[in-house]
Amino acid sequence: MKKLDELFPIGLAFHGHKCPAMPMGLRAGLAAMRTLGVERAQDKELLLESETGKGHAAACFLDGLMTATGCTYGKANVRKLYYNKLAFTLIDARTGRAVRVAVKPDFFEKALASPFVQQRKAGVPPQEIPAEIADPLVERILGLPEAEFLEVGEVRTVEVPKGKGVFEARRCAGCGELTFVNKLRVGTDGELYCIPCSGYPD
Amino acid sequence: MKKLDELFPIGLAFHGHKCPAMPMGLRAGLAAMRTLGVERAQDKELLLESETGKGHAAACFLDGLMTATGCTYGKANVRKLYYNKLAFTLIDARTGRAVRVAVKPDFFEKALASPFVQQRKAGVPPQEIPAEIADPLVERILGLPEAEFLEVGEVRTVEVPKGKGVFEARRCAGCGELTFVNKLRVGTDGELYCIPCSGYPD
Repeated sequence: MKKLDELFPIGLAFHGHKCPAMPMGLRAGLAAMRTLGVERAQDKELLLESETGKGHAAACFLDGLMTATGCTYGKANVRKLYYNKLAFTLIDARTGRAVRVAVKPDFFEKALASPFVQQRKAGVPPQEIPAEIADPLVERILGLPEAEFLEVGEVRTVEVPKGKGVFEARRCAGCGELTFVNKLRVGTDGELYCIPCSGYPD
Repeated sequence: MKKLDELFPIGLAFHGHKCPAMPMGLRAGLAAMRTLGVERAQDKELLLESETGKGHAAACFLDGLMTATGCTYGKANVRKLYYNKLAFTLIDARTGRAVRVAVKPDFFEKALASPFVQQRKAGVPPQEIPAEIADPLVERILGLPEAEFLEVGEVRTVEVPKGKGVFEARRCAGCGELTFVNKLRVGTDGELYCIPCSGYPD
């Protein structure tokens, strides 16, 4: 398992700014992996269901989760549930063993009152928040005993959705662009079109 | 602007395996950024609409796009359109200037006939495909003249969706977990619940 000190620079470079929520995601992702006894996903060995959403504070948590677990938006083994909560379920795709990890409410409430979030509320972009404010908070997250901020659930078994990979693609009769076949649509003329050219909603 | 040789190791570490599609995304993301004259997003200075989906070959393209542009799933400045096409639009959130970049159909068709994709079709996980097969394809992508594989559209101006950040969270009356207020739901008892506890579909 990659160590926190190896993951942090990768997460930081990927994420784009230094904030407390991304490393919180690294820590939480590693806690879930250790609980399940799994390594980082190289392909889709793990699945991640994140309860975070968009536009809320600390959504950056998910970039830390992806960096730690290897469940990435490109590989499509992560999805958001948009509950706007700092929690997620990590699933071992081979066995269905799963664990839910949540940031503890007391800790999270205090984090939302931190000077970092105050600056964000006041409209300061995260990359412009002074290092004197961001750095100690990030350092604290990196060193905090897990039980102080994470609630790690019991391991349970869930059903793992199956589906075969799509390797066939054809050209759209409209724009000529190559489109994977499960998203080609039959037009009124019987030809095959990509979704935008088809005019269909999906 | 970060150079390709700086981005490749970050993309590789984040993505989890060596394949031709991730570096294709790096190249395409950089082409879009250069066309718009923008730097990598540290926060949400850029928005990315990816026409890729899930479960199809070369979806890994998106992990390269995220790594190059700084539009990440955690920061929520990227969304998939699920057209299952290797194309995307990059938008400068400050000006609305936007450019669409697509992988050229001729090139993409040949890429789908490559030994790498043949191995994937045969069920070999990407990380187990021999380096003799993967490495030359990856090297080729990293050095290929842009015009040989990318179609870069004209710059146009689009409307940028606005919305304010959510910094307020309250405890769910059911589970007690902290939930950002725009996803709290009013229960029949008048109390505020997170979506799973509310029983409402969203």
